[in-house]
Amino acid sequence: MSEFSLIYQHFQNATQRHTYTDIGIGDDCAVSAVPADMQLVSCVDVLVAGRHFPIDTRGYAIGHKAVAVNLSDLAAMGATPYAILLGLSLPQSLANEAWLADFTRGMAEICRQFNVELIGGDTTRSEVLTLSVTALGFVPHGQAITRGGAQVGDIICVSGDIGSASFALSEILAGTKSALQHALDLPIPQVTLGQQLRGFASGMIDISDGLGQDLGHILSASQVGALIDLAKIPAHALLQALPKQVRWQHQMNGGDDYQLCFTLPKKAFATLQAMLPHPIYAIGKIVAKPGLSLLDGGRPIDFPIQGYQHF
Amino acid sequence: MSEFSLIYQHFQNATQRHTYTDIGIGDDCAVSAVPADMQLVSCVDVLVAGRHFPIDTRGYAIGHKAVAVNLSDLAAMGATPYAILLGLSLPQSLANEAWLADFTRGMAEICRQFNVELIGGDTTRSEVLTLSVTALGFVPHGQAITRGGAQVGDIICVSGDIGSASFALSEILAGTKSALQHALDLPIPQVTLGQQLRGFASGMIDISDGLGQDLGHILSASQVGALIDLAKIPAHALLQALPKQVRWQHQMNGGDDYQLCFTLPKKAFATLQAMLPHPIYAIGKIVAKPGLSLLDGGRPIDFPIQGYQHF
Repeated sequence: MSEFSLIYQHFQNATQRHTYTDIGIGDDCAVSAVPADMQLVSCVDVLVAGRHFPIDTRGYAIGHKAVAVNLSDLAAMGATPYAILLGLSLPQSLANEAWLADFTRGMAEICRQFNVELIGGDTTRSEVLTLSVTALGFVPHGQAITRGGAQVGDIICVSGDIGSASFALSEILAGTKSALQHALDLPIPQVTLGQQLRGFASGMIDISDGLGQDLGHILSASQVGALIDLAKIPAHALLQALPKQVRWQHQMNGGDDYQLCFTLPKKAFATLQAMLPHPIYAIGKIVAKPGLSLLDGGRPIDFPIQGYQHF
Repeated sequence: MSEFSLIYQHFQNATQRHTYTDIGIGDDCAVSAVPADMQLVSCVDVLVAGRHFPIDTRGYAIGHKAVAVNLSDLAAMGATPYAILLGLSLPQSLANEAWLADFTRGMAEICRQFNVELIGGDTTRSEVLTLSVTALGFVPHGQAITRGGAQVGDIICVSGDIGSASFALSEILAGTKSALQHALDLPIPQVTLGQQLRGFASGMIDISDGLGQDLGHILSASQVGALIDLAKIPAHALLQALPKQVRWQHQMNGGDDYQLCFTLPKKAFATLQAMLPHPIYAIGKIVAKPGLSLLDGGRPIDFPIQGYQHF
């Protein structure tokens, strides 16, 4: 049995056929019905062992994360996830039933959680474990939330703790066990919140390369600037205990948060705070002056923004 | 500038925005309008250097082939191609403007030829050049051609010469220059024919892993058998000149043909022969007896079918 057949068999046992899917795995392509009032939302992310996750990361976490980072991109458009296609390049050392079962369980559990179907895939042998996941989703016509709509005066928000994954990675790389390893290994994409923000958020991005860099994408796409108070960025207690410069480094220049960063008109912010079951966090506001200005508890400060470089 | 920005810049200069695309490259995801009477058709293929193409293949051919193999899968469903998403893992040695420009030109030219847009991508560094292309297309509702509809009595056809790429690869691996290298490097997906076969073909697959193995997928999906006359399989003159057993090996057990193999009711075959601008080739018929029976000019023969193994 081929690796992909094995993966698919595990998947079939763990997940359900999506109502949109007419033809799934097993032909040259999948065929899907798209609801008439919906637009198709699509993205791809590549993860390479030793680059996007430590080489000894367990299969379950790799499978989970490969799906999570893509669902996070869908969430950042306000889209409802539908399906994934998996391109898997697998070293001989991992081509065994135990690793594949663990990996597939990680993928299948997050897929089941968000009602996502595996509709296509290709596996091949390679010396380097490489995963490419394409995610497909849908959004009501014209309601996708882009990076380009932030307006001067809008409130800048994030959806949760920032910097936890970067801090965990720094501990692991230093040879320490990290209490925040789950943030690095098993990020939860903000899929529900992304959809709830349709009709409210003026701009949105998911934070994968560091809040500083990713907020920067909203600013350049919207041709505005931002004023951020670093003291207002939510952080896990373990990061709150760090020296400020270290904490800010993880929060602004770290990566792998997979929280959402979004901008809201003031009125929408008040409405959402009252409406949403989970808190959202105001960390600053959109200003006319280009670039990113930083405060610490209201006092202007300097802090260098770099962001994660994939190369 | 990131590698992907460079690739996209080349692409923008070479191709056009598709009318379906609402939001293209540059946000978290692409957003596309799907015509109301259409179904979405999707697939993914992974190509690894040294496994799917010789390691010294020029960038142009790699770019072309990564797109071609996916468009071939869309063709095999009768779909009209729309867009691709590219996951590219690039070694340092190729991360230079010359290679990227050549690679992108290869991708862009075949995309332009088939009106395909690059709507998403992710690049990363890796020791092994790995390409993952997801292709999206559309097919009128309910008209996708699957592997599962072949009926006893149907005529089995192929769209053109079989075995050329396998023969070329054997020459290259033996250190000889091959007159058929273009068949290996620059396969032309049978996109137009695939669409023309909608409403006619009862079953279809594209030949990527060898005619024997790929026809076998139609047979098992349709729960039928086939009788093939090896003498009727079209071959380039260079293959016609080979000993039969060598030619059959390339034709039945080779790979990388990217021709279509399809089944037609007799009447449809006659209609299409009169209608199509290019010839199609009858190579046998669907029979009730399971498995694949082979003839040579009408005489039963034995020949072992293996097909390409990706692992």
